Amino acid sequence: MKAGIVGANGYGGAELIRFLNQHPYADIELLISHSTSGKKISEQYPHLRGLAEWDIEDLHQEGITDRVEVLFFATPAGVTKEVLPSFLEKGIKCIDLSGDFRLKDSESYRKWYGKTPAKEEHLKSAVYGLPELNRDSIKTAELIANPGCYPTAAILGMKPAIQASIVEAKTIIIDAKSGISGAGRSPSMGNLFSEVNENIQAYKLCRHQHIPEIEQAFHELSGKDVAIMFTPHLIPMTRGIMCTMYADLTREMTAAEIHELYKETYKDELFIRVRPLGEIPATKEVYGSNYCDIGLSVDQRTNKLIIISVIDNLVKGAAGQAIQNMNLLGGWNEQTGIHHTPVYP
Amino acid sequence: MKAGIVGANGYGGAELIRFLNQHPYADIELLISHSTSGKKISEQYPHLRGLAEWDIEDLHQEGITDRVEVLFFATPAGVTKEVLPSFLEKGIKCIDLSGDFRLKDSESYRKWYGKTPAKEEHLKSAVYGLPELNRDSIKTAELIANPGCYPTAAILGMKPAIQASIVEAKTIIIDAKSGISGAGRSPSMGNLFSEVNENIQAYKLCRHQHIPEIEQAFHELSGKDVAIMFTPHLIPMTRGIMCTMYADLTREMTAAEIHELYKETYKDELFIRVRPLGEIPATKEVYGSNYCDIGLSVDQRTNKLIIISVIDNLVKGAAGQAIQNMNLLGGWNEQTGIHHTPVYP
Amino acid sequence: MKAGIVGANGYGGAELIRFLNQHPYADIELLISHSTSGKKISEQYPHLRGLAEWDIEDLHQEGITDRVEVLFFATPAGVTKEVLPSFLEKGIKCIDLSGDFRLKDSESYRKWYGKTPAKEEHLKSAVYGLPELNRDSIKTAELIANPGCYPTAAILGMKPAIQASIVEAKTIIIDAKSGISGAGRSPSMGNLFSEVNENIQAYKLCRHQHIPEIEQAFHELSGKDVAIMFTPHLIPMTRGIMCTMYADLTREMTAAEIHELYKETYKDELFIRVRPLGEIPATKEVYGSNYCDIGLSVDQRTNKLIIISVIDNLVKGAAGQAIQNMNLLGGWNEQTGIHHTPVYP
Amino acid sequence: MKAGIVGANGYGGAELIRFLNQHPYADIELLISHSTSGKKISEQYPHLRGLAEWDIEDLHQEGITDRVEVLFFATPAGVTKEVLPSFLEKGIKCIDLSGDFRLKDSESYRKWYGKTPAKEEHLKSAVYGLPELNRDSIKTAELIANPGCYPTAAILGMKPAIQASIVEAKTIIIDAKSGISGAGRSPSMGNLFSEVNENIQAYKLCRHQHIPEIEQAFHELSGKDVAIMFTPHLIPMTRGIMCTMYADLTREMTAAEIHELYKETYKDELFIRVRPLGEIPATKEVYGSNYCDIGLSVDQRTNKLIIISVIDNLVKGAAGQAIQNMNLLGGWNEQTGIHHTPVYP
Repeated sequence: MKAGIVGANGYGGAELIRFLNQHPYADIELLISHSTSGKKISEQYPHLRGLAEWDIEDLHQEGITDRVEVLFFATPAGVTKEVLPSFLEKGIKCIDLSGDFRLKDSESYRKWYGKTPAKEEHLKSAVYGLPELNRDSIKTAELIANPGCYPTAAILGMKPAIQASIVEAKTIIIDAKSGISGAGRSPSMGNLFSEVNENIQAYKLCRHQHIPEIEQAFHELSGKDVAIMFTPHLIPMTRGIMCTMYADLTREMTAAEIHELYKETYKDELFIRVRPLGEIPATKEVYGSNYCDIGLSVDQRTNKLIIISVIDNLVKGAAGQAIQNMNLLGGWNEQTGIHHTPVYP
Repeated sequence: MKAGIVGANGYGGAELIRFLNQHPYADIELLISHSTSGKKISEQYPHLRGLAEWDIEDLHQEGITDRVEVLFFATPAGVTKEVLPSFLEKGIKCIDLSGDFRLKDSESYRKWYGKTPAKEEHLKSAVYGLPELNRDSIKTAELIANPGCYPTAAILGMKPAIQASIVEAKTIIIDAKSGISGAGRSPSMGNLFSEVNENIQAYKLCRHQHIPEIEQAFHELSGKDVAIMFTPHLIPMTRGIMCTMYADLTREMTAAEIHELYKETYKDELFIRVRPLGEIPATKEVYGSNYCDIGLSVDQRTNKLIIISVIDNLVKGAAGQAIQNMNLLGGWNEQTGIHHTPVYP
Repeated sequence: MKAGIVGANGYGGAELIRFLNQHPYADIELLISHSTSGKKISEQYPHLRGLAEWDIEDLHQEGITDRVEVLFFATPAGVTKEVLPSFLEKGIKCIDLSGDFRLKDSESYRKWYGKTPAKEEHLKSAVYGLPELNRDSIKTAELIANPGCYPTAAILGMKPAIQASIVEAKTIIIDAKSGISGAGRSPSMGNLFSEVNENIQAYKLCRHQHIPEIEQAFHELSGKDVAIMFTPHLIPMTRGIMCTMYADLTREMTAAEIHELYKETYKDELFIRVRPLGEIPATKEVYGSNYCDIGLSVDQRTNKLIIISVIDNLVKGAAGQAIQNMNLLGGWNEQTGIHHTPVYP
Repeated sequence: MKAGIVGANGYGGAELIRFLNQHPYADIELLISHSTSGKKISEQYPHLRGLAEWDIEDLHQEGITDRVEVLFFATPAGVTKEVLPSFLEKGIKCIDLSGDFRLKDSESYRKWYGKTPAKEEHLKSAVYGLPELNRDSIKTAELIANPGCYPTAAILGMKPAIQASIVEAKTIIIDAKSGISGAGRSPSMGNLFSEVNENIQAYKLCRHQHIPEIEQAFHELSGKDVAIMFTPHLIPMTRGIMCTMYADLTREMTAAEIHELYKETYKDELFIRVRPLGEIPATKEVYGSNYCDIGLSVDQRTNKLIIISVIDNLVKGAAGQAIQNMNLLGGWNEQTGIHHTPVYP
C-alpha cells in the first residue's frame, strides 16, 4: 500500500515514519510539509539518517493523488478539513490525526475548537478510529478520524465500566497527565525545557477540546448524556499520558469483580493489557509502544472506582493507532509494524 | 534560640540547615543522625561545604538536652515517638516532621500507619503545626506536629471553601502529584533515576497515610464527617507538590465570587498567594520557597469547583513550615529566615 | 542605590529581580523590556506574584536617566552597545551582561560575534567584571562587562594553575557542559523540552564566541598567546555549568601540591570553594547560589592536570556576579544579597 | 537457537529480552537471576506483561546446560568468571556483558578492577566482541567478551583516525558523558532521582576500569603504546553515551579529508552512521537503537581533531551489541532483531 504523510515535519509525522519505514506491506511514497518542503526529512530529523532519506514536498503539485493509496494527515485542526477533501474525492483513504472530523456535532466543534467545522457530509461519513470501539466500521471507512491522545486513554479506560452500567457516567472525573511532546515541535514559550522541567502545570481547565470527544464516546457507550470534568496537566517528560479517573459505582462491587469484567471485555484485544489486580501501570511501561495498560482500584469508604490508564501519547495516542487503523483498512493483522516491546527503562 | 536536628541526614534535615544557617535568631547547636554520626554534615551534603561544617552526633549521649532549646525531628514515623518524649520532658520545644503526633485518634494512626501509636497524653498535647489553621496554639505549644506535605497543600487549598460551606466536604477528590524528594534519600528501587525519569506512577491508592490527616482537618473545618478520595502520583521532578481538587458546590456560585472568598480568607497570610482569577499556579513558581499558591476554576456544566494548590514539598511541606512554626514559638515575624523568593526557572 | 534592568524579561533579568528584591541597599526603580512593555513583570513571571509587582516600561521615554544610579543590561549582544552609551554618558553605572564590552580587541569581536563592535573608547574603559581577577578596577568602574557564563567557570578554574605557570596554557582543552537556561526564554526548536530532554548535544564546535573571552583572560594571566580548544554541550537540565579542563603540567607535581596552591590562591575569596582533595564538585551543589566550586586531579600516567569547576550559570555565571559587581561599586560586603545557600536536592 | 540470560533482572537483561523476544531465529529458554529466582520476569518488569511471562530460575539446578545453545551473562564483573566456565565447557556459546574477559592482560584486570582475574586460558580464547573490529573472529568464537559501553563509543569513534595514523594516539583525551542507566538497577544513593536530576557529576577520574579496555584497542589499532585521559560524567538522563574526543593531528588535514576517511572506513557497516560534514550527532538520535553515530570537526587554530560519537548505552553499548554478536555466531544478517529505528523524540 502506497502511503503518504501530510504534515510530515511534526512529531506525529516522525512517528508515522518510524512505523511505516519498517512496515512489511506499506511504503512511504510522499512526505508533505508546508514549512520544510524542499528539504530532506533526515535533515529535520537526523535520527532518520540512512533510514529515511526522502525529500519533503509541497502539497500543491500535479499528480500527487496518483502516488498514494492512503494518506495520513498530521496537520493541525482547522487545516486538515481544508486540504483533506480533495484527496478523499479521489478515492484515497484518509486517516486524520487532527480533531477536525472527530465530533459528529458540528456545533460542538464550533464551540470547543472556536473554528468553522468541516462539511456535514464528511463529519457524517468519518469513522472514529478507535479500533476497540469501531473495528468493523474502520475496515471499510474512507475517512478515519484518528482519536485524540487523551480520549484514547480515557475511553479505553472507562469503556468496560460504562458499557456494563456499573458507574454513573455523568459523574466521571478525569485527571489527566501528559508529557510535553503532545504540544508538538513548534516553538513556544510554554514548551521550553526551562519552563517545563521541574514543573507541573494544569491548563485549559474545563475548556479543553478533548472534552466533547470523550463525552461523545461516553454517550455512545452509556446511552446517556454525560458532562465530565476533565483536567489536563503537563508533566516534565517527553512521552506518556496517564488518565486517573474517578467514578461513583452504581452498586457495591469488589475490585475483583470489576477486574474480571475488564479482563473479559478486553480478552481479545492485542493492544490492551489489563494489569493483574493490585498492579497499577506507569507511563514508562508502555514507552514507545502501542499498548494501553489499565489498572483499577475500588475505594470502599467512598464507593468510588478509580481507573488508571496509560498510553504513549505519540503511539497509541497518535501515530501507532493510525497505523493500527491502516492495518484494519488493509485487512492485515492489527499488530503489523507496531508490535514493538516498550522501551524500558 | 539554640536549635538541633534529629535526623539531620535526610533531605528534610538538609533543608532545615539551609534555613537555620542564615536565620538571625537561631543557631544550630546539634545535628544528630544514627546512620552517619561521627561524620561531618558537609561530607554528606557537599553543597554545605564552608557553610555548615558541624559534626553529626549520636543521639545517646550525656548532656544533650542542655545544648538546645528547640529540637526538630526529621526522623521517620514510628521512630520519633520513641525518642522525642525524653526531650519534651526536659522542657525542650519539639517540632516533629514525622506523622507520629498528627492524628488525634490513636486508632486511626494504628490503622493507617500500621504501627503502635504514641502515648495519648502526647497526642493530646501536640498542636497540629499549620500556622494558617492554628497560629495561636502553635505560639505556646510544647510539641508541634508539623503537617505532612500533601495535607499542607490540600488543607490550605480547601480551607476557605470548606469553612464557608460552599462545597460538599464529603465529596472531595484530591488528585495529588509530587516530586520524588518526598521519598527521601534512602536508596530503593522506586527512587532510582532510571525508574522515575520519563514516568508517572500512581501509588498507595486509597491507603496513603495522609488520608486521615486531611480528613481530620476537613472535619474540624466543616464539623462533618468526611471521607475523601486521595490519589498520590510520583512525577519525574525533585521538588514540588500539586493538589488538583474537585468538589461539588452546594449552590451555584461564580468563580469570581469564590475567588473573592479566597482572597478575603487569606488576606493577612504572608505565605499564601491566591492567584488572580484565571491564573493557575505551577509548582515551579514556588520552587525553593515557603509559598503556597492557589488557583481555582468553576465548571458550570458540572457545578464543580476545582482548586489547584502548589507548594515546594521540602519547604512549605516540611522544613520551611517547621521554621515558620519555630518563628511563632520565638515570637518573631513568621517570614524570618524563610522569605526566599522562588528560584525560577 | 536606585537600580534598573534593561531586558528584564529574560531569565537573567528574572534572576536580577530575585536578588535585588531582597537586597538591603538597592531598590528596583525601573524595569525595561522592548517585547513586554506595558505589562507587569509578575504576569511574565508569576513566581514573583506579590513580590515584584512593577510595570515593565519601554526604553524610549523622558526622564528615564534620572530614575536610576545603576543599570543592568540583560540584553543580547549587539543590542547593548547601541543602547548603553546614552546612559553611560549621563553618569549612570552600567553593568552589561552581554558580550558587547568584554573583548578588548574589536577585531576579535567582529570575527567571533559576526557583528560590528562597540566603540573603542567604551571597549577601553570597560572593566571585565570578574571580581576574583579585577576587584580593584571594578570598584571604580563606570562600565562593567560582566563575564560570560562559560568564561566565569573556565577562568576561575584555571587561574591558579596558569598564574603559577604549572600548566602549558596553550594546551588547555575545555570540555564544557551547560544547562539549557543559558539559551534564554525566546522560543526556538533547539530549546524545546522534547528536543533537550534525554539528550546531550554538542554545539558551535571551535566557534563559540566565548573562546576569545577565555583566551583573553588566559593571556593576561600567563603573559602568553593561547589558543584553547573549547567544546560546549547542552545537558538536559535547567541550571548549571561544569567545565572539565585538561592541561599538560609543565613539571611533575602531585595533586596535593596543586591543591595547596589552589587553597592558597583563593583563601580570601567568599564565593570560591576549593573542595577537599579527592572531592569533585557537582553542578547541583551550587544550584541557585553564587558559588564557584573547584575540584582537581592529576593523571600521573599522562602528566595532565584535570580541573573541574562548577557554577550556576544564571547566578555566578550572570545575575549573581552582576550583583557582586554592584556590591563592589557600592562599597558593600560582596555577599550582600547573594549569600544564598545552594538549594539541594 | 535456544538462548538464556544469566542476570536477567538487570537493565541489560531486560534489554536482551526486548530484542530476543521478537528475534526470528532465537528463543528465550532460560532466565536466571540469583536475587529474584522463583518470580516471573513480568513482575520485575511490568512493561513485559503479556510479552514475556517466563519464570526466573536459579543458576544451580540440574540439566540446565541442556536447555540452551547460547547464554548471555549480564552479571557483574567478578561474578561472571566464576559461573561462566562450566557452561563454556559444555559447549554452550557464551556472550559476557561484564568486563571479566575483555582485558588480555590479567595483571591489568587485577590493577583496574581490583579483583582476581579469570583464568589465562579463557582470557586467551575470549574474542573481544566489537563486530566492527573483530567480525571474523566473532563468527567462530566460543566465548565473546562483549565490549563496555564507553569503549564501544570511544573505539568506534577513533578507529578510522588511529588506523590511518592521522592522530597521535597517545595524546587522546576522551571526555565521556553517560545516562544513569549504566549504573544498573541496584539501589544506591548515587543513582537516586533527586541526586541525579538537575546535576552533572564527574566520577572515577583517571581510574575508571574502561581505561585499559580502550587503551588495549587503541594499541591494537595503532601498534603503539597509548595512555589516554578518560573522564566519565553522569548526566541527568536514562540512556545515551556521548564521547567527545580530542586528538592532535599528525599532519595538517581538512575536516573534509578526514570525513572522507571515515565514510570510506565505515561504508559497509550497518550500524555506524557517519554524519554529513558539519552535523554533530546527539544521543537522542540513537535512542533505543543499535546505531553508533559519529560527527567530527577540525580546529585549525590548534590542529586538533574532535570526534563525537554517540550510542545508546543499553543497546550498542550492551544488549544490542550482544545480539549483533549472536547474529554473527548464527550466521544471520547482523541487523536481525535489532534493526529498530531510534525512538525520537
